[in-house]
Amino acid sequence: MNDIKHVLIVGGTHGNELTGIYLIKKFQRLPELMTRPSFNSSTLLANPEAHKQMKRYVDEDLNRCFRQQDLANPRRFSYEAQRAKQINQQFGAEGTRPADVIIDVHTTTSNMGLTLILADCHAWSVGLAAYLTTLYPFLNVLDSGLAQKSKQDAPYLDSISRFGCTVEIGAVPQGVLDAAVFQQAEALIQDILDYVEAYNQRAPISLPDQVTAYQTIQRIDYPRDESGEIMAMIHPKLQSCDYAPLHPGDPMFITFDGQTICYEGSLTVYPVFINEAAYYKKGTAMAFTQPIHLSVSAWES
Amino acid sequence: MNDIKHVLIVGGTHGNELTGIYLIKKFQRLPELMTRPSFNSSTLLANPEAHKQMKRYVDEDLNRCFRQQDLANPRRFSYEAQRAKQINQQFGAEGTRPADVIIDVHTTTSNMGLTLILADCHAWSVGLAAYLTTLYPFLNVLDSGLAQKSKQDAPYLDSISRFGCTVEIGAVPQGVLDAAVFQQAEALIQDILDYVEAYNQRAPISLPDQVTAYQTIQRIDYPRDESGEIMAMIHPKLQSCDYAPLHPGDPMFITFDGQTICYEGSLTVYPVFINEAAYYKKGTAMAFTQPIHLSVSAWES
Repeated sequence: MNDIKHVLIVGGTHGNELTGIYLIKKFQRLPELMTRPSFNSSTLLANPEAHKQMKRYVDEDLNRCFRQQDLANPRRFSYEAQRAKQINQQFGAEGTRPADVIIDVHTTTSNMGLTLILADCHAWSVGLAAYLTTLYPFLNVLDSGLAQKSKQDAPYLDSISRFGCTVEIGAVPQGVLDAAVFQQAEALIQDILDYVEAYNQRAPISLPDQVTAYQTIQRIDYPRDESGEIMAMIHPKLQSCDYAPLHPGDPMFITFDGQTICYEGSLTVYPVFINEAAYYKKGTAMAFTQPIHLSVSAWES
Repeated sequence: MNDIKHVLIVGGTHGNELTGIYLIKKFQRLPELMTRPSFNSSTLLANPEAHKQMKRYVDEDLNRCFRQQDLANPRRFSYEAQRAKQINQQFGAEGTRPADVIIDVHTTTSNMGLTLILADCHAWSVGLAAYLTTLYPFLNVLDSGLAQKSKQDAPYLDSISRFGCTVEIGAVPQGVLDAAVFQQAEALIQDILDYVEAYNQRAPISLPDQVTAYQTIQRIDYPRDESGEIMAMIHPKLQSCDYAPLHPGDPMFITFDGQTICYEGSLTVYPVFINEAAYYKKGTAMAFTQPIHLSVSAWES
């Protein structure tokens, strides 16, 4: 296995998620904080125009613009499509400064706590998740469902590098800096950089045999009328209960008139991204997940 | 004193504060909910274009467009300036359907709980605040500092009617519907309508002798560098502590490098609007208030 030579830390893929943006600014001001002996680190403020406008994006969601076929499509020229191509030309596998690892920092209005979203199920990435859970027992690991798909079909920024992950922290409102979340994100990135260094050194590292990840199995929309208008809200008993079990018959939505709509599935699921502001438009009230156990294999030291 | 003939319930003055918007939609669908024997109620979705774009505003903050001199200024023609003039021509004192009372429903990313912001200190308004605190002991009453100023200088939508108030609930992220908050706002509006009805009937009503209101005395900006960039966040010990006392020497901000900045004033204050997303741009990290006691005089029944 090749060493990791270049780690790219990304913030502001969504222009109104301030935590990553101010972390990037801090690392740019104090680059020694992201320095390790065996590799280079750099930073990217991914969507500066959207940040200037304090919006998630200008034309379309940048974090859905990184499918290889879209990056190669000359007829895609929204602001974000162009920006994705620039980022890929610089940091992608064939780029001028290819990144071996991308860490993309996000926040969500959902109460997802400290979540690590894996871009792949490579042993290196699973090892990273396992390592971080030893440091943060409350860390949630989310598998974006890519295990089954080719990475080149993934639309996410962190899919253009050999290894990638997204740090997702919530609940944080859009346009807000929460100091505790900022400090948590910074500490987590330091630990990821330490893991990269340990890997490059093939340093002995103690990891559990397996790690639990939540795998997305289905996206659930709000109940809507024929015009597409939402007819219900997340039920108060489900609000903020990301990663908690939702059993058949449990309350899921409540209409504006106070009628409870229950979960009618037959399988207990673990919803995440419950009531994420940006997902009303995407037709997602929450994503159902199921826990899976990933085997961990550390490198040979 | 004249009876109240027309109450206007307003939502969506800020296009990304969904609670008021969906309350308005509910009242439009079920107008009997806002009906009382002695007066008419109507609804207003104040900034539909901003809501369509899921933004606070298109060109400028609509809730700062209602100064009488601005409403009379023919050279003000931003989207919101025009919208304010339309609203005033319809619901203002000289309008086609003048509103005697305006109830404007807002949410904030600050942890302000259930707050009633008074547009004036008229006995009727103070009585309303007192009445609501008997029903909601946890209700906070905020005086927007207009007691000293002429109402015609107030920039707020609720200043164009004889009586007005703003319902402000938090913490709610922008672009998010929180069912518990929706239900709380709806219940509060019902109680306000009941108060109006009781007033028109001069029904006997039991009120406390006085009510505590928090009066805004100063707006505090984030520490910023010479380029205007913020240099610190709300301190974790102050985050979410709206209406709690901030004593001299208490932590107030924390820099991105972890340095605590303490409150250096000599007066204990009660901050509100702590870390409101929309106020980063306005140069307001929080507003200091001081509690004042307003005397309550009920009408003669």
